[in-house]
Amino acid sequence: MSSTWSNKISFSVFGESHGPAIGVCMDNVPPGESIDLEKIMQFMARRAPKKDGTTTARSEADMPQIVSGYFNGKTTGTPLTALIKNTDQHSGDYLKLSKLARPGHADYTGALRYRGFSDPRGGGHFSGRLTAPLCFAGAVAAQILEKRGIYVGTHIAEIHKIKDDPFDPIKTSREDIIALRSREFPVINEKKGKLMIADIKKAKECQDSVGGIVECIAVNVPAGIGSPIFDGLENSIAHLIFGIPAVKGLEFGAGFNAARMLGSENNDEFYVNDQGHVVTRTNFHGGILGGISSGMPITLRVAFKPTPSISRPQETVDYSAMKNETIAIKGRHDPCVVPRAVPCVEAAVNIALLNHMLDYPNF
Amino acid sequence: MSSTWSNKISFSVFGESHGPAIGVCMDNVPPGESIDLEKIMQFMARRAPKKDGTTTARSEADMPQIVSGYFNGKTTGTPLTALIKNTDQHSGDYLKLSKLARPGHADYTGALRYRGFSDPRGGGHFSGRLTAPLCFAGAVAAQILEKRGIYVGTHIAEIHKIKDDPFDPIKTSREDIIALRSREFPVINEKKGKLMIADIKKAKECQDSVGGIVECIAVNVPAGIGSPIFDGLENSIAHLIFGIPAVKGLEFGAGFNAARMLGSENNDEFYVNDQGHVVTRTNFHGGILGGISSGMPITLRVAFKPTPSISRPQETVDYSAMKNETIAIKGRHDPCVVPRAVPCVEAAVNIALLNHMLDYPNF
Amino acid sequence: MSSTWSNKISFSVFGESHGPAIGVCMDNVPPGESIDLEKIMQFMARRAPKKDGTTTARSEADMPQIVSGYFNGKTTGTPLTALIKNTDQHSGDYLKLSKLARPGHADYTGALRYRGFSDPRGGGHFSGRLTAPLCFAGAVAAQILEKRGIYVGTHIAEIHKIKDDPFDPIKTSREDIIALRSREFPVINEKKGKLMIADIKKAKECQDSVGGIVECIAVNVPAGIGSPIFDGLENSIAHLIFGIPAVKGLEFGAGFNAARMLGSENNDEFYVNDQGHVVTRTNFHGGILGGISSGMPITLRVAFKPTPSISRPQETVDYSAMKNETIAIKGRHDPCVVPRAVPCVEAAVNIALLNHMLDYPNF
Amino acid sequence: MSSTWSNKISFSVFGESHGPAIGVCMDNVPPGESIDLEKIMQFMARRAPKKDGTTTARSEADMPQIVSGYFNGKTTGTPLTALIKNTDQHSGDYLKLSKLARPGHADYTGALRYRGFSDPRGGGHFSGRLTAPLCFAGAVAAQILEKRGIYVGTHIAEIHKIKDDPFDPIKTSREDIIALRSREFPVINEKKGKLMIADIKKAKECQDSVGGIVECIAVNVPAGIGSPIFDGLENSIAHLIFGIPAVKGLEFGAGFNAARMLGSENNDEFYVNDQGHVVTRTNFHGGILGGISSGMPITLRVAFKPTPSISRPQETVDYSAMKNETIAIKGRHDPCVVPRAVPCVEAAVNIALLNHMLDYPNF
Repeated sequence: MSSTWSNKISFSVFGESHGPAIGVCMDNVPPGESIDLEKIMQFMARRAPKKDGTTTARSEADMPQIVSGYFNGKTTGTPLTALIKNTDQHSGDYLKLSKLARPGHADYTGALRYRGFSDPRGGGHFSGRLTAPLCFAGAVAAQILEKRGIYVGTHIAEIHKIKDDPFDPIKTSREDIIALRSREFPVINEKKGKLMIADIKKAKECQDSVGGIVECIAVNVPAGIGSPIFDGLENSIAHLIFGIPAVKGLEFGAGFNAARMLGSENNDEFYVNDQGHVVTRTNFHGGILGGISSGMPITLRVAFKPTPSISRPQETVDYSAMKNETIAIKGRHDPCVVPRAVPCVEAAVNIALLNHMLDYPNF
Repeated sequence: MSSTWSNKISFSVFGESHGPAIGVCMDNVPPGESIDLEKIMQFMARRAPKKDGTTTARSEADMPQIVSGYFNGKTTGTPLTALIKNTDQHSGDYLKLSKLARPGHADYTGALRYRGFSDPRGGGHFSGRLTAPLCFAGAVAAQILEKRGIYVGTHIAEIHKIKDDPFDPIKTSREDIIALRSREFPVINEKKGKLMIADIKKAKECQDSVGGIVECIAVNVPAGIGSPIFDGLENSIAHLIFGIPAVKGLEFGAGFNAARMLGSENNDEFYVNDQGHVVTRTNFHGGILGGISSGMPITLRVAFKPTPSISRPQETVDYSAMKNETIAIKGRHDPCVVPRAVPCVEAAVNIALLNHMLDYPNF
Repeated sequence: MSSTWSNKISFSVFGESHGPAIGVCMDNVPPGESIDLEKIMQFMARRAPKKDGTTTARSEADMPQIVSGYFNGKTTGTPLTALIKNTDQHSGDYLKLSKLARPGHADYTGALRYRGFSDPRGGGHFSGRLTAPLCFAGAVAAQILEKRGIYVGTHIAEIHKIKDDPFDPIKTSREDIIALRSREFPVINEKKGKLMIADIKKAKECQDSVGGIVECIAVNVPAGIGSPIFDGLENSIAHLIFGIPAVKGLEFGAGFNAARMLGSENNDEFYVNDQGHVVTRTNFHGGILGGISSGMPITLRVAFKPTPSISRPQETVDYSAMKNETIAIKGRHDPCVVPRAVPCVEAAVNIALLNHMLDYPNF
Repeated sequence: MSSTWSNKISFSVFGESHGPAIGVCMDNVPPGESIDLEKIMQFMARRAPKKDGTTTARSEADMPQIVSGYFNGKTTGTPLTALIKNTDQHSGDYLKLSKLARPGHADYTGALRYRGFSDPRGGGHFSGRLTAPLCFAGAVAAQILEKRGIYVGTHIAEIHKIKDDPFDPIKTSREDIIALRSREFPVINEKKGKLMIADIKKAKECQDSVGGIVECIAVNVPAGIGSPIFDGLENSIAHLIFGIPAVKGLEFGAGFNAARMLGSENNDEFYVNDQGHVVTRTNFHGGILGGISSGMPITLRVAFKPTPSISRPQETVDYSAMKNETIAIKGRHDPCVVPRAVPCVEAAVNIALLNHMLDYPNF
């Protein structure tokens, strides 16, 4: 199922960038969970285009309409479906490109996969717009988890080599996480944020784009959630994270740096803390051992490539005629997808955690 | 399902390190595929302990016995099951540790997850031994793919900061891949390999361990395989790769480095080559766009943490008594899991590719 | 997943009887299939209330709106989603009943399952209205199959002991099937049909209801489709058929009568016919052997209980107060669900067959 | 997945009738459940050939060996795998038939499905022997359920028109169920049992075979288990029951008779009983409403066709040469599969119920 993720909960994202609507159908959400629509809108607003010049000027209201599974302010337990109408399409911008493979995009691979029948307008089903229903689903999951004290936070860890301060993998609190959500440009060190914004704007001026890294943390996940081998927290999170367009890498805890450490450095020693809980002194394991939560914060980093849509001329092919061509991509594009990808990563992690929390006794 | 991966093909790995046997049950393997058992043994031998001092001295013959789904040298199409008997267990080495959480291991998280009922001997179901059935399944998948010209190769890209030369992401050939398989220590640059071996031995002498990175390439995968969003090649590969113990990171193509590039650098321009095929001049996308193969080699890198079992004393907890303790892990352990992880990565990628190839017209 | 069926294709039906809309999201439909919306409407119209007095007077237009997965008159291969707005709700009729368990309905069991949070209006997600999206999905599947020559037909085989003539399990043709579809009351023997209609009307007058049996046949299914054990045609069809409300039984071929036959009577002898095809002289096996199609027509019968909503007073409980009560169900109800269930059975069988046909070489 | 059933728990049955072994791999069984191997053997012994002449003379010991997922007498929560060696094969009996399609068997359809590569000896993977691992899995599920008070019982309801007394759908007790298990020929009315035995023996003498019906009841299933539409108790049970060879029909509660009743007859009125529980006065609904348990006994009936293997000459085809032939099936065959099918039905229902019970609060 190309657009469906199925485990204890499942959801399918559907729709095309320039079709009537996009949306999501989630099954197996627990019944009786209060869902605050205002908070959902706030979550989704974080994915909306920014006014600071770092993203596209396309302005979709992206108001989700819930059509099923929600009654009297609570989930019913039956499929929860939300629609988001497409309202601000400039198909003309795209249609003239439709036989040229935009470098870094899925135009060519998608045309092969769907034998030429997919909707090419605005990337169709491959569009970044499909992360809006992902965010809806993640926002629902987040509300359910937050009632159990679990908070998932994200910030821009790096844009084009400019690094933000990292999350403290031991002490990051719920309050730290909430504070980040209200920032227009979600970084921990605002000075670094300004440098990043300047860098993104410069790329835009140069008709170019930049990539970056999103760091994510989940706090208060109880120890013992997940499973070994193929149904662990890393597997579930990875399966979903690689569903976000432009993701090229994922690491947990010390990640690739762990490969450069000695065992005596990388092992996180356990101890019983003052509250009588088993904890670790360091958190290079990123809160997951053997696919199962250790009770320490879960940490991960996601690498995003630079936006492939750039207005500079690029060499490419007309894949219908099989001949070489040059392309210059017009239309409105984010010079950097990372600011808008922040809530998408958060959504994916919330969904994966909710999925595993359903097995938790007395959830 | 903790130990089951299910898609167009499925397989479950089962068994405990010190139980009667481990094994694998694969369903939906196509019928009529010739399987050469000698080649399976060669694949699995690459996962066996090395004689060069870089791995554990435990020597399991690890002879898989096929008990179903195989008739007259060919797959039948019904479930293919293989067993590997456990023969060389020294349970005594482990049993005395059984209530101390080995740092970096899943003892504590596994005890919570399975409420104390999992088999603790030798890591039980969490043992690295469970990668032997993964290799069996991968070896079967590899033989099916190789008949269609698809070859998956792996080498040790890095051990504790010592780097091998990378795969050429454009020109790596089937022959390059086959050559690596016969190397006792699979690196491209043998000088670097010697440095790595020396480093691993040094770690062992210091009662310590080291981590590293495995690089993998798949050549001749036809363009158009995979799907967008949640059923793409990256999702499937990631889901399986994070099933290998000690993996902490995964990147495709330029991976985390893509996050540091400009769009104009990272975009791989298309052109029609002399054979009339659409190809790219560079391969930062790692052969996958929108979850779908582009026809270029698929490249990925997997980060492994240092072996958590080290014989140095470490602080930890007795999680049954909830008190602080010190542990020094005896028994035979790999000072570095990376050399033996090489075929495991190859297995996971072969399985994921076979899975998606089943959708290929005229497969 | 309560409302999702997932195999090679998947679909989720969503919505509540009195919510804004009901609908369906199908994944993995092959790309490039022409879908004629007019024909879909015709299929769905067969499920609409009849004007002959045998069904409810509720008249929903039930116009499905496709919101994704359909472009230029063809499927795109990405999720196909359709919405059907709810327009003719008389919630008042139902709300006063909401704490009384209607006998034969899922009010009480659903309240327990969803801990009181499901939408009770009009049966909510348990409503027979949810068969409208099933019919949409089935109508899509039917069009794809019919292009390959496969036709699925249904008729009312029995209403309250009045029996129609059965399908000829050997000779039923595509034309026979098509002819049935245009009948307002789909029976083979119209005299029997008139008796059935009279019986249904009489039940209605008596404030009672009747049940019946739907017979289904699928012709031109190629031999070799399906699988043994748990992924056979019977398993898939059964899994879906029991998703239609009021179904209490299902039999294939000779069904329960096979249990009363001798092996020498029930075995269908094979022979090679004039066209050189392997066929059977009789068709007690219903076109399926070992879960796999034999090339003979696939035949099945589905038993429906009488509509549980009757306006006669019945004893029941108020399950919130746990006390005994009497209920008389007002509102508009079908005195017999069978006439409207005919296309639902056809839809389920079409979906199951399409699912297995995706494995057919050169599909 | 042809031989895998996957839901909250999953299991794959594997093996061929004349291969080295058959077996089962179950995933997601809860940890810490005591499993009494002696009781498993008793369950499986009920599927063994009978000594009363009603079944085949083939005598497999069918001793399952557990190779994983079981430690210190309890389930570990990791995959539970059991092997049953094949020891009493007379392949010679079958091999000479291998290109003739036995009427009523899957030889022809299986050869098409697996393109001639399946193991034909003794029916291969299509053999009734594959119900032995089903019974193992069911016996495990039964032990887990019985600790929660849930008992599943079965009897032979009908053989070739000779009917046993039915289960009382209201009052059948755990003791009634246990008593049936120790009967060599499990019927309620032993006089009818004798008639059935005589009828089976007569069929055998006539080189013929007979079919029959198995009735099943599950008591003490709490109300509220299951889900509407596609994940209900009927869907799960049906999906598994049609995995048993020779099943042609399935009905719940009043089943096909419900189709002949009036709503006022078929509706089961609710009342609050002396213990303060909501119950029904009659049980035509078979303990399931809207896919969810009502708390009343769950009742179902399964129709089995006569054994297709009969030694009388039958017309058939040589499907390799596509010519007409005559076949007389030698070898040892059950003149009636029903007596040995009794625990298979019980196994399937236990597995389906355990699956849904995993969702029950405080399971």
